[in-house]
Amino acid sequence: MASDAGYMKRREELIALDRALRADHIRDPLSPTEAKADNVIRELRTKEASTIWNADYPSIPHPFPGMEFLTGRSIIEKTKIFKILSKMPKGAILHSHFDAMGNPAEILKLVLEQSAMHVCCSSPLNSSNLKSILPKFKCLPPEEYPKETVSLTDDNYTCNSWISANSAREMFDPELGGPGGFDRWVIAAMTINPTEAYGTHNTIKKIWQKLATTFHLYEPMIHYEPIIREYFRQIILSAIEDGISYLEIRMNLPYRCLANDCKRFLSDHEIFRIIDHVLNDIKAELKQQGREDEFIGAKVIIATLRWISMENLEERLQNCITLKKEFPHLVAGFDLVGHEDDADQGYPLSHYAEMLLKFPEMQKKAGVDEIPFIFHAGETFGDGTKADGNLYDAILLGTKRIGHGFSLLKHPKLMEICRERDIAIEVCPISNEVLRLTSSINSHPVPALFNHGLRVALSSDDPSMWGCMGLTYDFYQVLVSSELTGIIQLGEVAKDSIKYSMLSSEEKERALLAWQRRWERFLEYVLRVGQELEIKPVDQMI
Amino acid sequence: MASDAGYMKRREELIALDRALRADHIRDPLSPTEAKADNVIRELRTKEASTIWNADYPSIPHPFPGMEFLTGRSIIEKTKIFKILSKMPKGAILHSHFDAMGNPAEILKLVLEQSAMHVCCSSPLNSSNLKSILPKFKCLPPEEYPKETVSLTDDNYTCNSWISANSAREMFDPELGGPGGFDRWVIAAMTINPTEAYGTHNTIKKIWQKLATTFHLYEPMIHYEPIIREYFRQIILSAIEDGISYLEIRMNLPYRCLANDCKRFLSDHEIFRIIDHVLNDIKAELKQQGREDEFIGAKVIIATLRWISMENLEERLQNCITLKKEFPHLVAGFDLVGHEDDADQGYPLSHYAEMLLKFPEMQKKAGVDEIPFIFHAGETFGDGTKADGNLYDAILLGTKRIGHGFSLLKHPKLMEICRERDIAIEVCPISNEVLRLTSSINSHPVPALFNHGLRVALSSDDPSMWGCMGLTYDFYQVLVSSELTGIIQLGEVAKDSIKYSMLSSEEKERALLAWQRRWERFLEYVLRVGQELEIKPVDQMI
Repeated sequence: MASDAGYMKRREELIALDRALRADHIRDPLSPTEAKADNVIRELRTKEASTIWNADYPSIPHPFPGMEFLTGRSIIEKTKIFKILSKMPKGAILHSHFDAMGNPAEILKLVLEQSAMHVCCSSPLNSSNLKSILPKFKCLPPEEYPKETVSLTDDNYTCNSWISANSAREMFDPELGGPGGFDRWVIAAMTINPTEAYGTHNTIKKIWQKLATTFHLYEPMIHYEPIIREYFRQIILSAIEDGISYLEIRMNLPYRCLANDCKRFLSDHEIFRIIDHVLNDIKAELKQQGREDEFIGAKVIIATLRWISMENLEERLQNCITLKKEFPHLVAGFDLVGHEDDADQGYPLSHYAEMLLKFPEMQKKAGVDEIPFIFHAGETFGDGTKADGNLYDAILLGTKRIGHGFSLLKHPKLMEICRERDIAIEVCPISNEVLRLTSSINSHPVPALFNHGLRVALSSDDPSMWGCMGLTYDFYQVLVSSELTGIIQLGEVAKDSIKYSMLSSEEKERALLAWQRRWERFLEYVLRVGQELEIKPVDQMI
Repeated sequence: MASDAGYMKRREELIALDRALRADHIRDPLSPTEAKADNVIRELRTKEASTIWNADYPSIPHPFPGMEFLTGRSIIEKTKIFKILSKMPKGAILHSHFDAMGNPAEILKLVLEQSAMHVCCSSPLNSSNLKSILPKFKCLPPEEYPKETVSLTDDNYTCNSWISANSAREMFDPELGGPGGFDRWVIAAMTINPTEAYGTHNTIKKIWQKLATTFHLYEPMIHYEPIIREYFRQIILSAIEDGISYLEIRMNLPYRCLANDCKRFLSDHEIFRIIDHVLNDIKAELKQQGREDEFIGAKVIIATLRWISMENLEERLQNCITLKKEFPHLVAGFDLVGHEDDADQGYPLSHYAEMLLKFPEMQKKAGVDEIPFIFHAGETFGDGTKADGNLYDAILLGTKRIGHGFSLLKHPKLMEICRERDIAIEVCPISNEVLRLTSSINSHPVPALFNHGLRVALSSDDPSMWGCMGLTYDFYQVLVSSELTGIIQLGEVAKDSIKYSMLSSEEKERALLAWQRRWERFLEYVLRVGQELEIKPVDQMI
């Protein structure tokens, strides 16, 4: 190492200038506990990189920290860092979609409890077509229950004929695994597997087609009154379990959810009542258990698909206002969703700009508080494409945050505006990787966003599909694919997820105080793990 | 599309501000010919994206523009855009390595012309080991020629025993393809194939191991006096053929090149004499043919490996000064090379900083003109790693350009410094992709560098290994993986490669004038192609 003291000083100054915009640099100096905990995580990361990540795994040819998530998940789960992060208070989830947040196995359990739930498929199942034929679910009213039941695995099964989900499971050919085989068949269809993401569907277009298929499968499983309540409850409880204390969930309206009688759809009003009840119940339960710090609440970002007609958009905006009037505490904002990159699958934001520009005026007329736009934009590796161009419109239309912003780094002026106007970026690392915008987290733009002083909230997008409910996996990938980012930066990201949420100032204050208390307990826990592993505390270092 | 005129105006203004730093925006307004040619290329790109890139190829499961180069090369070569770009005047190659710039088949031909050239391998070759056993070449003085010759494909072949390269070829088992099979065996070992890059060696560490193996194979094939002259000549002629008019080539010294007698190594002085002669010959030939505009010359960036001792570095720096004194027109700068990312494979720049800081003083003492540093730095997707940190040292040590700078985007302050101090980035898109820093050019940082106003020279690095001699392939990948970058931006990149070269101001002026003349002829050619293809000229567009 150069012993020229002048040079080394200039070098340090330059590095400090270069990192001056990072959240972990502009914050208060580290407390002694923070400094020690930071050191424990850095040492452990280095150690695990050369042990767990450097070992031989028969089914994983090229393990490395930050690697393709679906292949590397089993290694991630072996690490101490993963275990530690699972206990970290993570603030808020600000970007995930209502139908894609549940544990697939738990959803299937809920489905099997309902006698109304039926299933069909396009061909009798056998060992050679089991991987390619998908299940389809539907709730039927009692008078439409099928008269006879032939197993899906019976050669005599009539294609696309409905049979009770429970019978289908019970009668599933033992050769194909019996009831357990049925479960595996359904769950496989509910998730994206490594062969699909990194092999058969290894382009953005193809993997999105797979994703769309998966969403279509979930819809009838979840959109049923007796299920949705329990489904939503499970989402919230498992988020709390993962250290998440607040959620803003995108929900596409109209949310065609069948009522108990399977004969009509619930109104948006009824859906929001269910959401409200579930949240109030959970809050009351936690209060009873003295765990109020762990959960602040949840809100909905009302979304609609980016290919609807202009008239329908107007109706959706009106409807959003109506819901805001009735559930002011539940409506967080408005968004348009869908595969931005696929020209056949919808319009860019600019297409709707004129109508969207009217939204503030519509709100004022209705006398509701401001409903912000929180737009998806730039979920693309394109340069100068329509999806990339959505970033301009999102910002011109006054978006409060940017969903994804994967291509934001290509836009110097927009980066400046995001910093000036405090527009945070909802970054979904694992989603971006599985959906083939990046081959590993190491090539993901998130470290550059950190370094350029953009404020980031890490999020999970559609965790059901990649089997990583909660935020621990996303935090893990970001932590191990950088040597610069440590637990302090992740702490700032967690705090930012609260700061840049649509909570009121009072709620934010309460949430941040609660987060701080949990953060300090978490750091103590990290130090205990460090001691157990005999990691040298930082003050004994050089 | 939004019909709100005010909004659309604000949108245009924002886009203009966002792109204000791009080379194609800060230049003079387009000439009518430029505008039309730009349109032809854009229309053609759109058309080919939905035709050639959207067709079915049995051996290419997921074609798309910008895809993995080694898999997509055969599609690239089918496109009209590729044909057009092959005729574009591309300015200079500023980043490529002497031993890795030749066409492997041509190198093998040169090798087979030399009776001194011998070959061996570690096991008799057969159909099952042919793909895994590598050839090894060596020049022998006549008295060491082997007494008997057993074919490499004969079971009785003694492992690692030298036989004449020509005999080895002639005697190659017809079952294994005979002489043609020998050629294919050697050439396969000289190149990285798609299965290696995207399968068996699909991590940075593994693909670099493969790259190192390949370099070791080339060395004895090229480092022989009767070959190097013709090899260098071919490199230059094929570059000229590809529209390249100037080269700065990194050459590792000491360049252990065997003299004609195979008994001693040529001195650096002798090597530089050969280089000088070849360049003078080519210039004279072109002058005779009235083609002076096509070639300005070539210089050497003297390099040494980043794991040498401090004493050796001092000696190398002295030696560089000596060569500069004798060949002032040939020495362009000094660099340290090797796999930055691999801690076992050398030191970061900071390790050598103290010694490197002395270089200007050493030069002054010797009375030579300034020899600039032109450092490799940031050839990594790491964040805060030593390789990433090399960017700080390169800049602090006053580098004139940055080789690769793949991780530069993570450094806001360094980007600012590069803009202020006019430090250009030598970007090697295909190299970065094959060496697994990015999965496709679509995820490569080059569009972001353009948009942030960094000045870029596209280069090919080790084109022998990926079979893409010249710059056409790299230009192609950058053009088709963006909708923003057009032929005008590529023209600016070509000009920049001259501007940011180490040519003298007079040479630069001459080179730029020559480039401009060729550019105008090229644009006319693009318009003719556009007419043939019946692409609407831009002034007929809305």
